Amino acid sequence: MTGRTAFETRYGFARNAVLLSNWRESPFNRWSFQNVGELVPSAPFASASGSEAPPQALGGLLDEKVASANAPETVAAFLQRSDTDALTIMKGGKWVGDWLAPHMEFGARHIIFSISKSFTAILAGILEGEGVFDPEAPVVNYIPEAKSSAYGDASCRHVLDMTVSLDFEEAYLDPESAFARYRRATLWNPGGGSESLKAFLLTLQRLGEPHGRTYRYRSPNSDLLGALLERASGQRIADLLRDKLWLPLGATSEGSIAVDMEGTARTAGGISVTPRDLARVGEMMRQGGMANGRRIVPDAWVRDTVSTGGSFEAWQRGTMAFLFPKGRYRNKWYQTGHDSGAYCGIGIHGQWLYVNPRDEVVIAKMSSQPEPVDDRLDVELVAFFEALSRMV
Amino acid sequence: MTGRTAFETRYGFARNAVLLSNWRESPFNRWSFQNVGELVPSAPFASASGSEAPPQALGGLLDEKVASANAPETVAAFLQRSDTDALTIMKGGKWVGDWLAPHMEFGARHIIFSISKSFTAILAGILEGEGVFDPEAPVVNYIPEAKSSAYGDASCRHVLDMTVSLDFEEAYLDPESAFARYRRATLWNPGGGSESLKAFLLTLQRLGEPHGRTYRYRSPNSDLLGALLERASGQRIADLLRDKLWLPLGATSEGSIAVDMEGTARTAGGISVTPRDLARVGEMMRQGGMANGRRIVPDAWVRDTVSTGGSFEAWQRGTMAFLFPKGRYRNKWYQTGHDSGAYCGIGIHGQWLYVNPRDEVVIAKMSSQPEPVDDRLDVELVAFFEALSRMV
Repeated sequence: MTGRTAFETRYGFARNAVLLSNWRESPFNRWSFQNVGELVPSAPFASASGSEAPPQALGGLLDEKVASANAPETVAAFLQRSDTDALTIMKGGKWVGDWLAPHMEFGARHIIFSISKSFTAILAGILEGEGVFDPEAPVVNYIPEAKSSAYGDASCRHVLDMTVSLDFEEAYLDPESAFARYRRATLWNPGGGSESLKAFLLTLQRLGEPHGRTYRYRSPNSDLLGALLERASGQRIADLLRDKLWLPLGATSEGSIAVDMEGTARTAGGISVTPRDLARVGEMMRQGGMANGRRIVPDAWVRDTVSTGGSFEAWQRGTMAFLFPKGRYRNKWYQTGHDSGAYCGIGIHGQWLYVNPRDEVVIAKMSSQPEPVDDRLDVELVAFFEALSRMV
Repeated sequence: MTGRTAFETRYGFARNAVLLSNWRESPFNRWSFQNVGELVPSAPFASASGSEAPPQALGGLLDEKVASANAPETVAAFLQRSDTDALTIMKGGKWVGDWLAPHMEFGARHIIFSISKSFTAILAGILEGEGVFDPEAPVVNYIPEAKSSAYGDASCRHVLDMTVSLDFEEAYLDPESAFARYRRATLWNPGGGSESLKAFLLTLQRLGEPHGRTYRYRSPNSDLLGALLERASGQRIADLLRDKLWLPLGATSEGSIAVDMEGTARTAGGISVTPRDLARVGEMMRQGGMANGRRIVPDAWVRDTVSTGGSFEAWQRGTMAFLFPKGRYRNKWYQTGHDSGAYCGIGIHGQWLYVNPRDEVVIAKMSSQPEPVDDRLDVELVAFFEALSRMV
């Protein structure tokens, strides 16, 4: 009999200290973000092959200095300060290097939170290319029962671009908010199991402002997108992810997506994948929708998503323009507006998929930042990714 | 937009009809038994390789007649009547054939219910061989806080052989029983999340009869076994399964085990694996604890478990002697007492791992029988496995 378990030695707390009520808090998230399926029911989506090329050390790059908020610091120091669990870099389609925190193993899955939105939008692009889904159609064409909700007069485009005039606040930390009801409906917090995610979504109401005018980041839109795609295709999201993205992409590890009490996929934030597979999605976008010589998603959709589409005015009216002053948001992807042409998917607690076309670089960063949102750190992270792109 | 989803076409009901309140009922269990992780939080245990040899049809065997309750019927008819989802047969260490219901894909995982107990006992045998776990020790040596429970004066041996004098009924269908509290603690039924599985186990009390006298099949014993092994080894059950069984065994697919609100593994019934990997465990037992030329568990432990150990008297005093009149129960495995020397693991709703040493046959059967327990069908199934062993 041992006093301290292997788990305690590794993570610094006991497994039974991690509960549905605290799993997204630090330090528990250093473990839970890699093990969401132990807390929230989840559906797998299989990969084609189980073989991943071995990890490559970042080597001397870790000791190089980057500008930071206070003073130059080493890449290694910045990765630690930003609570990085894993960093994987590609350049020109080749693996540059992998960095892992001591509490994460190479090949482990990690939740990507709202980069799940960007994945789901790729499915929308694929289904659009197949003529199965029309992004300009009214939501009620696919979900008639949304008629008396905020989505009753919204289009799928509004949902895709986060310009639904939705009366809902992303109050991540207030346990009494409508957001808390949302968290219960997704089974992410205790007390779920009575109201389904879809039922919750259909109770949401709109603001007076017209749809389409202002970028309003509201996660329920992205869960609704999943429901729209399921209705349009007649397929479950996990099956779409497997058949249309994971298998053709050549992902090497099974992914998973959290589901609610009736199996509705948490497309707004419930996907877990390995850092390498996350980077593969970025590389596919960088290749204009191609992977392994095979088309995954139409090139026109990628171009629209990462460079030409989206409303600068709507973005300016939103609350995130501080991060990308020249940016736009299209199909659940952020266009930075930088000279590098960079675009990205972003998830709370420090999840990033950063694609820099000019430097041919893709960076996947998975983290367990203690706060869901950290605006100051986000600004630093963007500068870091741009600097890193030039260094590799 | 399609009217009928791919899911409905395949299973005959909608995904959102399957809830935590009905997932083990027919017809929903035809899907849910292969997708437990969508209903109950689960921990994965990785396999070494992702490559499985392709399925082999059973061919003419399906048309052969076997004796059954009423009259001879074909193997195919019996498989259907017994709600088989998958059947895999090995002989002499070689794959003889695989049969799959239309609603199960080759390579899919399926819950094995109480064969999980037999897996967990293998871990106990391995840890005993390593000198880490003593099956004859008092339970309180590992779990001192069990002192005032039924386990306060029981040994691990009593737990392993189901001879704890436990005041607990396996009332699978009564929603008001202590069994219902157990189901909530495991998160298998709605209303869980307040009492942990371990807390529940420690509330159980004993009967007046001495421990060791009567075979009493009580699943909580087997959950306690998992807790005993975690305490003894300092490792989590999922990690033990991966490191000590799944990787050395050469299992080809990731398995999973359901966990409770604080991560305690459902060792009494929460493991899901593929039919092929289930058969591999049987073959390892048939090989006296060896797989791929490597020792998994001591041969003395296997011999004791499948042939020499266990109390015939305790078995006779129990309620399952009708199934194996000459049988015994040892280390969570059933010795049939047949001339074939057969032994097996059994799970509710028709899960079987049947090993027949005389005929060198291993049979894995996964099912979605509508009732958890069906004594009459069990008698038929045992006769079927014996007949099948001689036919292949």
